Amino acid sequence: MLQPMAIALVHHPVLDRRGDVIKSAVTNLDIHDLARLATSYGLSRYYLVTPAQEQQLLIERIAKHWREGFGAEYNQDRCRALGLLRTVGSLEAAVKDWRGLVGPAALPVLTGARHKQGRTFRAVRTLARHQPLLLVFGTGHGLAPDIYANGWPQLAPVRNGCYNHLSVRTAAAIILDRLVGERGRVLAAGSD
Amino acid sequence: MLQPMAIALVHHPVLDRRGDVIKSAVTNLDIHDLARLATSYGLSRYYLVTPAQEQQLLIERIAKHWREGFGAEYNQDRCRALGLLRTVGSLEAAVKDWRGLVGPAALPVLTGARHKQGRTFRAVRTLARHQPLLLVFGTGHGLAPDIYANGWPQLAPVRNGCYNHLSVRTAAAIILDRLVGERGRVLAAGSD
Repeated sequence: MLQPMAIALVHHPVLDRRGDVIKSAVTNLDIHDLARLATSYGLSRYYLVTPAQEQQLLIERIAKHWREGFGAEYNQDRCRALGLLRTVGSLEAAVKDWRGLVGPAALPVLTGARHKQGRTFRAVRTLARHQPLLLVFGTGHGLAPDIYANGWPQLAPVRNGCYNHLSVRTAAAIILDRLVGERGRVLAAGSD
Repeated sequence: MLQPMAIALVHHPVLDRRGDVIKSAVTNLDIHDLARLATSYGLSRYYLVTPAQEQQLLIERIAKHWREGFGAEYNQDRCRALGLLRTVGSLEAAVKDWRGLVGPAALPVLTGARHKQGRTFRAVRTLARHQPLLLVFGTGHGLAPDIYANGWPQLAPVRNGCYNHLSVRTAAAIILDRLVGERGRVLAAGSD
C-alpha cells in the first residue's frame, strides 16, 4: 500500500522550445485526461498550477460544468474525476495545500525527460511507500530552473532510447502506472 | 526482444455513450500523442482508421505539415513520429497492410475497459515475443460488436478498480509500457 499521492501540472514557470520561461495555456484535454488518470489510480489531489487569473477562471468554469451543472448528471464519471481538481497560483501553493492535507513529510518529486541522472522508478516507488508524494509535471518543454532550485528529488525519464518525446498526458500515465501498478493501492488523504 | 508491433486507433465502428455505432471525429492530439508514444516504444506503424473521406484529408494535411512543410524543420521530433502514420478506411485494411509488411502471422489484439475476462498483460507480452501484434484501440465508448466477431484476443483492462475511465491516450500509453517496458526493445518491421 502506498501513502497518499497527488499530481501537479505546472503551466508556469516552464520552458518553451527555445528555453525561455513562459506561462503555457491550460488545455481542456489536460484537465480531463489527468483527472481521470488520477482517479483511476486512487490519487487524492490534482493541482492545476497557473498564475494567470483568466486561466484559473476558465478551469473553474469547466470544472463547475462537470461537477455541478448539466455535465454532472450527463457524465457522473467526469464529475467524480474532477472532484480531485484544485486550481492554484504557484507550485508552492500546491505543496502547501498538499502538506496541509497529509502532513509536512509530503515530498514533491519532479518529472522530466532530461533527468538522465534521476532516481529510478524502483527508488521512487520505495519513497512512495513511506511518505506522501506530489508528482510534479511540466507543460511546454518542461519545468523551469527555478523549480529545480528547491532540491527536490528528480525521477528518471520514462525511456532512455534515442527518441523520448512523450506528451505530458502519456508520460503521466506511464509514470503513475509504474509507481502504483495494475493492482496497487494508494491510501486516500484525509477528506477536507 | 519483441516482434514488430503496431497500433490502430479506430474511429469507426465504435460506440457512443448510448451504445449506438458511430463514426467519431479524429482529433489533432490523438494523432500527435499516439505517434510520439509509438515512436518512443519502437513501434513500426500507427494506423488511423476512419472511413470518412474528409477526416482522411484532414489527417493527411496535418501529417504533411509536420512531415514535409514548415513543421518538419520547426520540429523534427514530430516529423519523425508522424513517419509511422498510415490512414486507412477500415480495420481490415490496417490488418491487411500490417500483414503485408510483417507476414500473415500478425495478430490483432483488442483493447477495452470492459474486457473483464481478457488475457492478462503477462500473456499478451508472451504473445508479443513470438508474433507481430496489432494493438487495436477504440475511440468514443469503445470498439463496436462487429470488431469482436473476428474472434481476436482481448486484453484485460488497465485497472480493475471501481473507477476505470481512462482516455484512449493514457490507456494506450500504459498498455505499451506494460508490454514493452522501460528498457524493452521491439524489432522494426521491414521498411517499405
